[in-house]
This record gives sequence, C-alpha cells and structure tokens, in this order.
Amino acid sequence: MKLPPDYVCGVVAGEGCFTIVISKHKQKKLGLDARLHFEIELRDDDEEILRSIQETLGCGRIYHLNLERYGWNSHVELKVSSIVDIKGKVIPFFRKYPLRGKKKNAFECFIQAADIFSRKDHLTLKGIEKLRAIRKRMNRYSKKYQASAKVRENRAPSGVRILASDS
Amino acid sequence: MKLPPDYVCGVVAGEGCFTIVISKHKQKKLGLDARLHFEIELRDDDEEILRSIQETLGCGRIYHLNLERYGWNSHVELKVSSIVDIKGKVIPFFRKYPLRGKKKNAFECFIQAADIFSRKDHLTLKGIEKLRAIRKRMNRYSKKYQASAKVRENRAPSGVRILASDS
Repeated sequence: MKLPPDYVCGVVAGEGCFTIVISKHKQKKLGLDARLHFEIELRDDDEEILRSIQETLGCGRIYHLNLERYGWNSHVELKVSSIVDIKGKVIPFFRKYPLRGKKKNAFECFIQAADIFSRKDHLTLKGIEKLRAIRKRMNRYSKKYQASAKVRENRAPSGVRILASDS
Repeated sequence: MKLPPDYVCGVVAGEGCFTIVISKHKQKKLGLDARLHFEIELRDDDEEILRSIQETLGCGRIYHLNLERYGWNSHVELKVSSIVDIKGKVIPFFRKYPLRGKKKNAFECFIQAADIFSRKDHLTLKGIEKLRAIRKRMNRYSKKYQASAKVRENRAPSGVRILASDS
C-alpha cells in the first residue's frame, strides 16, 4: 500500500539516512570504492510500514538486522544502493516532497554527491576527494561522529568499509 | 510553522511514544500516582521540527535532554502530560490523521487509558489495575522491555517512577 508522501518525509526525519560510503577495494584501480546509500531503519514489528515506503518510493531492498547481541529488538532496513534508483526515484521523490531540518541539508549534500557519480568522477581521485569534502559537510553537526570516524578511518584494516552518515 | 499532519504521523512512527506512568507517591491516598504522557524525541539540531510539531498539535512543552554522559548528541523532547491537552488535542489529532503500524495499536491503548482518567477511575485501585493491564497490552511486543521492567518494578525504591512505554 502506498503512503502519503508527507508521511514518508516524517519517517525519514527521524529514521532516514543519506550515506556516502568510501571503502578500500583491492580490485579497483584507485584501491578505493565509492558508493551512495539511502536507508530507513525501523524496529522489525514495523516492517509493514517499511514495505509500504518501499512501494511508495518504488525501489530499495529490505534487510533484517538482528541486534540481539546488543540487547535490542531486531530491526528492518530499507536500503537503496543502486545509483539508477537513487537518481531516478529517491532524489526526484524528495525534490517533489521536501524534507525538513537537518535531513534537508543532508539531502542537498547527497544530490551533489550523486552528480559526481553521474559524471563518473567517483572513479577518479579528484572525485573521491570531492565526495570526502561533501561527506564532511554532511556530518558537520555530528562532532562526536566525526571524531570516532577519524579514529576508525585511521585504524580500518584493508577491506573494512569507512562509513559516514548524516545521523 | 504548522506541518502537514501526515508528516507529524511519520515522525511519530519512529520517534513518538505513548506512555502510561504509574509511580509510588507518599502524598496520594493510594500511595500511587498515575499519569499519561505523549512524547516525541529528536536530536537537538532538529529542534525546529519539534517546535513546528508543537505548533501543529497546539500543545506540549519542549525539554532539552543532555545525553553527553552516554556519549550521544543531546536531544530535545516534546512532552504532553496535561490530560486536558491529551483528551482535547493529541487524541483528536491522531483520530483525524491515523497512525500506522505498532504506534496505531499503542494509540488505541492510550485512548482506553485516557477514558479511565476521564472517569476519574485512575484514583481507585481498580482503575490502576486496569491501567496496568492496558500498559501490558501496549508493551506486548517488547518482551525484552517487559522483562527489564519487571526487574525494575521489583527493585524500584520508594518514589522511583515505574515507566512503561510502547517503544
């Protein structure tokens, strides 16, 4: 069942996440791989809502996240990682039905990052540097996150994803 | 600035909480005090959204929650604890603009609890027992929460609030 677009924007305000992922990758020419993700995570008893958001956006895959080891309830995640869907569905949706607050700023950064992918610039070191700069702006509020991300980036062993998100 | 009602429902899906509070209270005839709360909690860089929700609902107070001791960003909370506002504003709003998923079930329980307050039954032991039964239904998914709540209820010293929420 499709949902009212404003409802989707409200869920994203709290639970949505625009992410620029830059990971080490031995098979890639630069030794680095850049990707974009849009994710929404809810508790797994609200999977019905997530499936309706999937239908409303017309894209994304749903994953089950077992968080029992943290003593939490399990979660479900809707993840859009296809650049075609991000450019063709996610971005047009939130352009038509605007986000608010800090997610609005994160979305503006995400659009800039998607443009870099459109131009294939993410396959160049210059493009990766631009993506890192956008990611920094995306995270500027989250000082705590930046500090811990820096530690993780310095320590990350080969193949470990270095993540940055807006929340 | 008022927000689209569906947007408010979307935020509540992830970040809203309907709560029945039963606490020990030496000054009360029964030794117990029952209250209802409706709360929405967001990170404090989204205070603007919370203030707009406050304006849209036409009630509630905003509190700043310093969570630095947990290593988290600080939060802001919109809290409606006046039974007059709950009956006159919160319940009519979400009756007109329905919630979805597990928050819908929690809201149905909350309406039943509010009816107990309207009849002043929360001032009787029978009413308190009814509220406890409703709270149990409200929490039935959250097995982990119920287990920890039971431990806390058994251990709670005089004056400590025994909380139950739907999330």
